[in-house]
Amino acid sequence: MQIESLLSADARNLRPSAIRKFAAMMNDPAIISFAGGAPSPATFPAGRIAHFAEKVVRDTAATSLQYGPTRGLPALRDAVASICRERGFACDPATQLLMTTGSQQALYLVSATLLDPGDVVLVELPTYIGGAGAFYARRAELVGVAQDDDGIVPAALEETATRLRAEGRRIKFLYTIPNFQNPSGRVLAAERRRDVLELAKRFDFLVVEDDPYGELCFADDLDTTPIKTSDDEQRVIYLGSFSKVLSPGLRTGWIVGEPALVRQFELTKESADLCSGMLDEAIIAAFCAAGELPEQIKSVRAFYRDRRDALLGALDEHFTGRATWTRTEGGLFTFVTLNDERDTAELLPPAVERGVAFIPGGAFFVDGSGANTMRLTFAKETDDRMREGIRRVAELFFAA
Amino acid sequence: MQIESLLSADARNLRPSAIRKFAAMMNDPAIISFAGGAPSPATFPAGRIAHFAEKVVRDTAATSLQYGPTRGLPALRDAVASICRERGFACDPATQLLMTTGSQQALYLVSATLLDPGDVVLVELPTYIGGAGAFYARRAELVGVAQDDDGIVPAALEETATRLRAEGRRIKFLYTIPNFQNPSGRVLAAERRRDVLELAKRFDFLVVEDDPYGELCFADDLDTTPIKTSDDEQRVIYLGSFSKVLSPGLRTGWIVGEPALVRQFELTKESADLCSGMLDEAIIAAFCAAGELPEQIKSVRAFYRDRRDALLGALDEHFTGRATWTRTEGGLFTFVTLNDERDTAELLPPAVERGVAFIPGGAFFVDGSGANTMRLTFAKETDDRMREGIRRVAELFFAA
Repeated sequence: MQIESLLSADARNLRPSAIRKFAAMMNDPAIISFAGGAPSPATFPAGRIAHFAEKVVRDTAATSLQYGPTRGLPALRDAVASICRERGFACDPATQLLMTTGSQQALYLVSATLLDPGDVVLVELPTYIGGAGAFYARRAELVGVAQDDDGIVPAALEETATRLRAEGRRIKFLYTIPNFQNPSGRVLAAERRRDVLELAKRFDFLVVEDDPYGELCFADDLDTTPIKTSDDEQRVIYLGSFSKVLSPGLRTGWIVGEPALVRQFELTKESADLCSGMLDEAIIAAFCAAGELPEQIKSVRAFYRDRRDALLGALDEHFTGRATWTRTEGGLFTFVTLNDERDTAELLPPAVERGVAFIPGGAFFVDGSGANTMRLTFAKETDDRMREGIRRVAELFFAA
Repeated sequence: MQIESLLSADARNLRPSAIRKFAAMMNDPAIISFAGGAPSPATFPAGRIAHFAEKVVRDTAATSLQYGPTRGLPALRDAVASICRERGFACDPATQLLMTTGSQQALYLVSATLLDPGDVVLVELPTYIGGAGAFYARRAELVGVAQDDDGIVPAALEETATRLRAEGRRIKFLYTIPNFQNPSGRVLAAERRRDVLELAKRFDFLVVEDDPYGELCFADDLDTTPIKTSDDEQRVIYLGSFSKVLSPGLRTGWIVGEPALVRQFELTKESADLCSGMLDEAIIAAFCAAGELPEQIKSVRAFYRDRRDALLGALDEHFTGRATWTRTEGGLFTFVTLNDERDTAELLPPAVERGVAFIPGGAFFVDGSGANTMRLTFAKETDDRMREGIRRVAELFFAA
């Protein structure tokens, strides 16, 4: 059997995720890990989910254990439409919404529905690995757009779009995570959100706005209003998720978009998995119907805010003058850029020998840059272990 | 927004499933429906699933509510490897197995990993709509192979493969459901399973053996041994599912295949949805670990056997001499061929007016044949309603 000759061109183009090789060290309890990307199990409302799981199976087995609509359980779609209204935009649950098997499937459905090989997708520098993976799976060409502390730099976006247009290239969409971006932890400034949408109109591309962290905001006065709220042309495809506020094991995300596009995503999903997990959807619908989501989100925010404080405090103590990093106001990550040009990928093995791990940032840059950066999550370790971990990293990196 | 111009070539090729338009009537309680394809909720062990759901969330929230391995929960993979051994073939859970978000995702992953536009997939006449949909999603060309009461006709398979070879066409794989096929209810005869595998070797194509119904066997002496058991070249990709024996709402299927191929399916799945639902997998793993699956399967078999008896009895009474149908020995369906050439699609609207529904069989034939056939499920209605439904259909079809 010659496997290679059997594979589709798309499959031959697939490569293991650049951070997959770090998976083992993320879960080794002997290693202080800043390397994961998952939420903390301490934030999962396990008792309540156990309660609702038992209840929905007993009360509604004919729905929660059966095949369901490809678009998702009607009760959950109504709950998500309410969430969208609270975030500032209308969403007709019958025509503009599709529930997905986690947010990753949303990215994949967008990719399979919109991208032909060679199509250009604009992504942030750095960007989310899973988004990039979904676009590479269709052999798209990913073109990076510079960010600074306020997110995408509009002038850089304009310059890139102008250049691509001059080259006769088709930009299908810009992929952006405006709130507490993975991996950078940055927030796209409010005025830049308007700029981005204006450029999308001018250069006629779509915006895929991925917002899994928007609810995990630690600051009261920060503007995290989705770009979608200003979307008067239905040019924005908005992706949401319950993974970070509730549980990623209940694989439940969603897509909001223009009705004809949502219809196409639905057709692609029908061939991809028929429908998402009805038990997962029924549990989340029951949780929302009981009115427990707002309190849950408050509690998750408080949990991560404290962790964030501990990590930024440790960085202040040990990294000041030797690196810069995001003063993260939400989400799960901060992102460090060393003052000098050392490659964090080369620093990782000795760090792991010292019992501490991080993700070298180069994996997140589609243009090959970012060697002197790294992503740190504050979701996994206790405050004490984070302080100790940062001390060890500083000792390794900066010892004279 | 010009939606059409935004779509990928694959997306433009997608069409709604040919049986989707019948969805509404499948669920109208006023209509006696032979039209569904879903298992009966009466077979779901709701009390036990409620118990295990509550238990696994309470005991193992850090696993069951978290992201998990793309290949699936290790405990469940071990359970599936045992199931495979019982079905007669070895499966190394570490290298030859991938859990999927239902069997539909398995079909999609096979399709996305192996098919380029224009590749040939051989399918049975008739074949499963969801399989065909997954292959059309990659713009494959589906070529039908004749069946008779013993399943695929080897001479027809040989003739088709010979013709395609002469035309210089590449056959990537044969898609077959050897046990109690959806829609035909037929079983591929044991000696033909050998013939099919020999032809696969001779013409160098893979066999995708989809076996969701194999456990639902009503006869003690029927040989339903998977083709996979004779697969000395790892040429067979075997698909299994918990949807028909346990619950389709817990979206859990699997793929067994050659390790390098499984690795590719895993990469495709990573981009498609990262991992399947961990709560679903944990519930099923706990159910299997408690040793409850064999009794559950026995009970599901007995349930459907009785229903099958009622439907075939009604057909004997009302259809004899006017049609032929599968004397189904397992699964969920029988398949009727009218003696004359009338089109069942034209007979459906007046049937629905009389309060009874079926699926016109033409939807299952990729070559446009089968107009005088229909699929009937015995999973949905009570015995009395089935008898009344068949009486009404006969009255409509055969009244002088």
